[in-house]
Amino acid sequence: MKIKAGIVGGAGYAGGELLRLLLLHPNVELAFVQSRSQAGKPVHTAHPDLLGETDISFSADAAIPVEVLFLCAGHGEAARFLAENEVPAETKIIDLSQDFRWNEKTICDVVEAGERSFVYGLPELQREQIRQAKHIANPGCFATGIQLALLPLAKQNMLQSDVHVSGITGSTGAGQSLSATSHFSWRTENISTYKVMEHQHLREINRSLLYLQPEDQSNIHFIPYRGPFARGIFITAYLQTAISLEEAQALYGNYYAGHPFTIVTDQNPDLKQVVNTNKCVLHLQKHGNMLVITSLIDNLLKGAAGQAVQNMNLVFGLEETTGLKLKATSF
Amino acid sequence: MKIKAGIVGGAGYAGGELLRLLLLHPNVELAFVQSRSQAGKPVHTAHPDLLGETDISFSADAAIPVEVLFLCAGHGEAARFLAENEVPAETKIIDLSQDFRWNEKTICDVVEAGERSFVYGLPELQREQIRQAKHIANPGCFATGIQLALLPLAKQNMLQSDVHVSGITGSTGAGQSLSATSHFSWRTENISTYKVMEHQHLREINRSLLYLQPEDQSNIHFIPYRGPFARGIFITAYLQTAISLEEAQALYGNYYAGHPFTIVTDQNPDLKQVVNTNKCVLHLQKHGNMLVITSLIDNLLKGAAGQAVQNMNLVFGLEETTGLKLKATSF
Amino acid sequence: MKIKAGIVGGAGYAGGELLRLLLLHPNVELAFVQSRSQAGKPVHTAHPDLLGETDISFSADAAIPVEVLFLCAGHGEAARFLAENEVPAETKIIDLSQDFRWNEKTICDVVEAGERSFVYGLPELQREQIRQAKHIANPGCFATGIQLALLPLAKQNMLQSDVHVSGITGSTGAGQSLSATSHFSWRTENISTYKVMEHQHLREINRSLLYLQPEDQSNIHFIPYRGPFARGIFITAYLQTAISLEEAQALYGNYYAGHPFTIVTDQNPDLKQVVNTNKCVLHLQKHGNMLVITSLIDNLLKGAAGQAVQNMNLVFGLEETTGLKLKATSF
Amino acid sequence: MKIKAGIVGGAGYAGGELLRLLLLHPNVELAFVQSRSQAGKPVHTAHPDLLGETDISFSADAAIPVEVLFLCAGHGEAARFLAENEVPAETKIIDLSQDFRWNEKTICDVVEAGERSFVYGLPELQREQIRQAKHIANPGCFATGIQLALLPLAKQNMLQSDVHVSGITGSTGAGQSLSATSHFSWRTENISTYKVMEHQHLREINRSLLYLQPEDQSNIHFIPYRGPFARGIFITAYLQTAISLEEAQALYGNYYAGHPFTIVTDQNPDLKQVVNTNKCVLHLQKHGNMLVITSLIDNLLKGAAGQAVQNMNLVFGLEETTGLKLKATSF
Repeated sequence: MKIKAGIVGGAGYAGGELLRLLLLHPNVELAFVQSRSQAGKPVHTAHPDLLGETDISFSADAAIPVEVLFLCAGHGEAARFLAENEVPAETKIIDLSQDFRWNEKTICDVVEAGERSFVYGLPELQREQIRQAKHIANPGCFATGIQLALLPLAKQNMLQSDVHVSGITGSTGAGQSLSATSHFSWRTENISTYKVMEHQHLREINRSLLYLQPEDQSNIHFIPYRGPFARGIFITAYLQTAISLEEAQALYGNYYAGHPFTIVTDQNPDLKQVVNTNKCVLHLQKHGNMLVITSLIDNLLKGAAGQAVQNMNLVFGLEETTGLKLKATSF
Repeated sequence: MKIKAGIVGGAGYAGGELLRLLLLHPNVELAFVQSRSQAGKPVHTAHPDLLGETDISFSADAAIPVEVLFLCAGHGEAARFLAENEVPAETKIIDLSQDFRWNEKTICDVVEAGERSFVYGLPELQREQIRQAKHIANPGCFATGIQLALLPLAKQNMLQSDVHVSGITGSTGAGQSLSATSHFSWRTENISTYKVMEHQHLREINRSLLYLQPEDQSNIHFIPYRGPFARGIFITAYLQTAISLEEAQALYGNYYAGHPFTIVTDQNPDLKQVVNTNKCVLHLQKHGNMLVITSLIDNLLKGAAGQAVQNMNLVFGLEETTGLKLKATSF
Repeated sequence: MKIKAGIVGGAGYAGGELLRLLLLHPNVELAFVQSRSQAGKPVHTAHPDLLGETDISFSADAAIPVEVLFLCAGHGEAARFLAENEVPAETKIIDLSQDFRWNEKTICDVVEAGERSFVYGLPELQREQIRQAKHIANPGCFATGIQLALLPLAKQNMLQSDVHVSGITGSTGAGQSLSATSHFSWRTENISTYKVMEHQHLREINRSLLYLQPEDQSNIHFIPYRGPFARGIFITAYLQTAISLEEAQALYGNYYAGHPFTIVTDQNPDLKQVVNTNKCVLHLQKHGNMLVITSLIDNLLKGAAGQAVQNMNLVFGLEETTGLKLKATSF
Repeated sequence: MKIKAGIVGGAGYAGGELLRLLLLHPNVELAFVQSRSQAGKPVHTAHPDLLGETDISFSADAAIPVEVLFLCAGHGEAARFLAENEVPAETKIIDLSQDFRWNEKTICDVVEAGERSFVYGLPELQREQIRQAKHIANPGCFATGIQLALLPLAKQNMLQSDVHVSGITGSTGAGQSLSATSHFSWRTENISTYKVMEHQHLREINRSLLYLQPEDQSNIHFIPYRGPFARGIFITAYLQTAISLEEAQALYGNYYAGHPFTIVTDQNPDLKQVVNTNKCVLHLQKHGNMLVITSLIDNLLKGAAGQAVQNMNLVFGLEETTGLKLKATSF
């Protein structure tokens, strides 16, 4: 079986990463990779590592009929694309922007947008709903890492006190546009914070937690940091809880037992374990009455393109890990 | 005036940094730089950037009479050195280890060690005591950055709720000994935590805070991170407080008004502003009822050798900034 | 078909990388991964990214019968292993050390070692001989990158003047042992040279060039550099030649036409195009009478474990690229 | 004595570095720091490490009378500034652009530009001429490092064969403008070449060598590399020569004996020895008949602003090292 797929917005970081994955996916036939800025050029012009991997060029047009359409067009652009283009009702859509992850009217994990319903595509939260879905809102990168750190607690109504979260992100998290804080001379060997306590991903995180634990008593305090590395997100979260380390390990182990990409380890992990993979690695510690959870993902894979492919696999009834058994870079 | 100075343990990172500073200090005459491992070799063997700066060689002996003795011998080694060597009573001692920063019997900011009293050498905490002191226990690097973030609050009895602290340290914080987590292949582009909630500097921090605010109601929750950079410490601390941002800025501004190295900025800072300087840069934000403090230092300077020289300046009645007006690396 | 494989020395960098590849290879069944230092421990103890990928543990023993034995034991250790262990005559051996790449008595690209003949495993030099071989000496990393830059010229007797080579290597090239030049504090943002004009890989390079061009008139002048990055080798080589850029591009294009991993590009390349892939990317420029060749590989893949798997594929009659279509890290 | 100084173009990398130096210089009074883009803002807006160091703001105007005017306006802009502004004849000018380093009509080391004569400001080439000069063309960064590697040979007519040069530069060499090759995601852990064999600094290098050795028989082949670090230039140069290593060391030692910033070492050096200093470190090796010279500088200091201050010191009769005894960053 080959799924006919198209990518809208294929010249950016997430689009490129998706392209790399789909080119290696055994059940995908790539119909087009659209890009306004690069139309007509071979994809290796924008993504030089793809030299020798494919002869495909960026198209200006996204109208070619496909079974699944990936939207990598950026925040705001996805909604505009769907408003301006006639996408057949039967086409599956997986959107990587934040346009359909959350809206103010929505209190459960499906966002209604006109005639379409977007299911929030975090398989560890609601895999069965994703399998039945036609349209997927792919979660944000920080949102993925933080939710995976907290879902097992929310499921058991155990979010009863404030949660203190730090998250350090690599430079690819900010995309390929040029900016002062992505200039190498500035960023190398440097650290800074941004959007302290106000990161936009908090909305989708809080919504998912309320979905699992409707009487969530916790507040999330979140400080995002810019780190001097290209790929990955390193999250720590801690909160007061009465359960022991052993109980917490059992809770997390059970919750993620059937989820192939989320792994609980009893060794102190480091970020590069997950770089260039679709994994989330979780680690638990207990210090006094504080449960400390470490959560690591690759922002471009489990935090974006990898999770999009995982969702496609679920939507089309494929084995969840198809095309996602990736060699870690490790170093 | 030239102060005759000696360094014990001059081949390590802190010793080397102290050597760089003392060679450029207008009021210091370096009598010896002792090192067991490097005795007899020119100092530029261990510190190649000093090639052309000095002809001094490491000595095996530390018995040469000096007016001030810097101990960079490592934790445990400083106490042993003083036990095994007869240091004249009038010799000033500035110890960079943790041996005299804290002990269980001490409830104020002076540690009694046999016949000697070590004054805790954080000028922003107790500059007058330092000016009168003969023996100084130079603070730890994380301890310096975290205390400078909290002292103005403690002074006003405003530590009334838990303090949540993250601190990311560069690789020089772990010294020059070889280890798996200082291997370049591992550390570059990587992040990990260590000593979560259990860092040994918490003892000296808590002691200083209790000294200023004897009924300190707060607990400090501290997660240290290893970052992929060589120099610097980036700290964030936050706590609930009723005071407004303007009040907090005034409080910090007043507290540090006469302290030349600790600067409060209203711009979001980044770590490299302080690298290769003796400065601490502080930044305040208020989000809801949370006051968020960012605190940045160079771990080898304000966090070690620079503060040691600052203390020497105070002990010998020199202008506090002498020899410490350093060009920032910036990039 | 499943090839039964064993790895001797699986705890190091090359062994770990080979393990990552073989676990994902569709035609391999891993019989054992031997390590003296790690015997009995799960492989993810040494290679934490393999957590969740396999339950295999390191074995002390390498005596389990296999069809192919990979030796990752280090220079000198491979020869010793074969001397001290009875490896059945029919077992294929792929050695990643330098023990069988070259010896003083050998003038062609097969090294006789007792009863065994080791074929030099550079597919772009002698793919047919590799297909027929039982024992393979896998080339060195610098040797691979430099040879691929020069083979098409040697094949046409065009090495008629001195060749000037610079090669910058990442830290993984020096293995996982701890040393002053692999300490993060030293290596980050730093550059140095080593083994200037005397790198040991020059022997195998010169032997291969003489094999193709027996009257090679050239000398290779080679400066290796340590670079502040973990993976990859960046090589430039230049020499005087009368041929035009177009002729050179045709020459290289033809030579590598049937070789799936070696790609000639007309765009100025950068190292990260090949990181975490088995590719070599070549780029040609002509400036005056100088032909300048850029050659990029990942030292752990095309320069070690990836090429070993490529050789295994050839030896066992598999498609050359099996298990080697890897997603580039790109960033 | 205080020299009244002004900076034109103070918001860029070289301008900022010059500002850092002049603020610490004991004999300089800064009259203005001009910047079109930042006029009216405090200098710490563009250079945040200067927070707390000075209250000066960028001025729109550069017309305030000064004794020395530093032009950091960029290539082409310096000539335009002098054409459009009336700078008094007695004002000393030190230009950091390439506008007056070389022109086609000039065969010696003074460039005539209208009524002004610009002396090429490489003290190790022509210190006496600089002492007598009113206008200085400050050398390029690569040009400085490469010339210092070759001047002693040229002085002795020993450039008799081709010189093969590699130079790896940090990202600050490309200035602060945003570009694809200065994006952190691209540059970290990456290497590439640019302007192969065609770097514009070759002109000023060749002119200086011909000045010392009018019958220079050599060609310089130069490959510049972009390296993944912020500061510094690492150069290797080699050529055939009959002299022994000892003779070469004596030759270089004698040539640089009276030059305080250029140091010949017999230990294999690394780039970070010179970072944040005004030094050039040279190292010599002999391999067969090849003399290999390593040359290291900080591109922003000895390669730009530091050398500009060195030239100012010479022009005003100060000790050459005044204000330039800088603490190396080392790590």
